Amino acid sequence: MSGCLYIVAAPSGAGKSSLVNALLEREPGIALSISHTTRPPRPNDRDGEHYHFVNRGVFEKMVADGLFLEHAEVFGNCYGTSRAAVEPLLAQGRDVLLEIDWQGARQVRAAMPGCVSVFILPPSRAELERRLRSRGSDDAPTIARRLAESREEVAHAGDFDYIVVNDQFGDALADLRAIVACQRLRREAQAVRQAALIADLLKAD
Amino acid sequence: MSGCLYIVAAPSGAGKSSLVNALLEREPGIALSISHTTRPPRPNDRDGEHYHFVNRGVFEKMVADGLFLEHAEVFGNCYGTSRAAVEPLLAQGRDVLLEIDWQGARQVRAAMPGCVSVFILPPSRAELERRLRSRGSDDAPTIARRLAESREEVAHAGDFDYIVVNDQFGDALADLRAIVACQRLRREAQAVRQAALIADLLKAD
Repeated sequence: MSGCLYIVAAPSGAGKSSLVNALLEREPGIALSISHTTRPPRPNDRDGEHYHFVNRGVFEKMVADGLFLEHAEVFGNCYGTSRAAVEPLLAQGRDVLLEIDWQGARQVRAAMPGCVSVFILPPSRAELERRLRSRGSDDAPTIARRLAESREEVAHAGDFDYIVVNDQFGDALADLRAIVACQRLRREAQAVRQAALIADLLKAD
Repeated sequence: MSGCLYIVAAPSGAGKSSLVNALLEREPGIALSISHTTRPPRPNDRDGEHYHFVNRGVFEKMVADGLFLEHAEVFGNCYGTSRAAVEPLLAQGRDVLLEIDWQGARQVRAAMPGCVSVFILPPSRAELERRLRSRGSDDAPTIARRLAESREEVAHAGDFDYIVVNDQFGDALADLRAIVACQRLRREAQAVRQAALIADLLKAD
């Protein structure tokens, strides 16, 4: 039995990471995929937990060897999702979730057509700006860049299977959980999970 | 904006009607389609509420005029879902639910490819038999006939988009509600509902 591969994307400031973390807490059947990156670790980063930190030589060799489901370079740093971080879990029947951008999502969709993709929108432009500013950690040029990027990201929302608006956090989390619950009820998943029941119901007297 | 057309089917005794009634109570956005039938009204049947009761001449004229989305004859009585019972509601953006069998579902899928179909299974053969017997209203030959029919119905469960097992009523109801919630998050529905938000997020500075 194969698990379900989820892709979650959003513009920066939509609240994607908080929602994904809350979802994973409540749905232990879903594993978060750990990406590879060439960006230097920050003080709180733990290798193999937040990212697999590798140097550019290793990363480029992995790309050349076709080991990535998706990869991209963002502001001089490379990021990628290895097949090894995803495929063994799916084969064991675990669901896997990827937090990636629209370009990564496009690559994964091409490689794994059965994936389920979700795009998270902030409730308004004004609220997106407010959330980006309230982080306090980013300077004005970074915020301006993030806002410009957010438009490009949102322009691809229509490529995703589902769109969730993160206005009230609890409602958006319930929406994500409904999407997950629903995938588990699809005939392909149920034909496997309920095989014994269906055989019981079909057997002749 | 167009509503979503739901089809719900199940073998007799799976608890379909109770589940559908509970779903409709909690989801006032979904209207139950009212079928036409040639069977005689029973004491508690109200014309236009449970069914539209018509004679065979009227029914056959409606078939000839192509007014039905689906229709079938079951034990000498005709049943059908008219296009007029469904299409105006969908056009107004309301969701519509049909309680029909696998043969009706097949006709509706062909006519309305965007419909969402759900099959409800009982938790076991023994429980299905127990539920059919505990009704008290059916004699032994009727129960035997229903059990034989249930096998034919279950044999087509794999034609449906989603499969829900009605073991604990509350869980099965939550499953149905997750399916409904999920459809409302699909990009096609959200592109319409969130059109103003998406335009706001995309507009240039």
